[in-house]
Amino acid sequence: MKAVVHVELKPGVLDPQGKAIAHALNGLGFEDVSGARVGKVITLDLGDADAANAEQRVAEMCEKLLANTVIERYRVEIEG
Amino acid sequence: MKAVVHVELKPGVLDPQGKAIAHALNGLGFEDVSGARVGKVITLDLGDADAANAEQRVAEMCEKLLANTVIERYRVEIEG
Repeated sequence: MKAVVHVELKPGVLDPQGKAIAHALNGLGFEDVSGARVGKVITLDLGDADAANAEQRVAEMCEKLLANTVIERYRVEIEG
Repeated sequence: MKAVVHVELKPGVLDPQGKAIAHALNGLGFEDVSGARVGKVITLDLGDADAANAEQRVAEMCEKLLANTVIERYRVEIEG
């Protein structure tokens, strides 16, 4: 079973990495790019066969390690 | 218009960051995690109203800046 965790900065939190990307794209001639934000996707291989339980455990992993919940929000998807 | 770019390591390329995450999760008691891989999601704000053209331009951005195509692959989604 696989779990896909999407971690992104909460709206309103400054994203310097995204700003740098937008600036660099503008410099390369892509002037229609007015902003960029960067997030992470973490794909976990899980042994557990129980999807409901897995979702709860992965949420716990996010709270403890994968996301900084002060500035980031996360979303968990469980795949077959 | 928004473009969402997913960048991930090609299969077979070692992912030390993912390995560190899996190891840390195991250490926290999540022993069912047997592996992890980490990717990026870049959300771009585009002014362009032409979706087909936008997709091509974003692919060009990936080739030039957003992805290292030697070791990474990317996928572009255009959202209304």
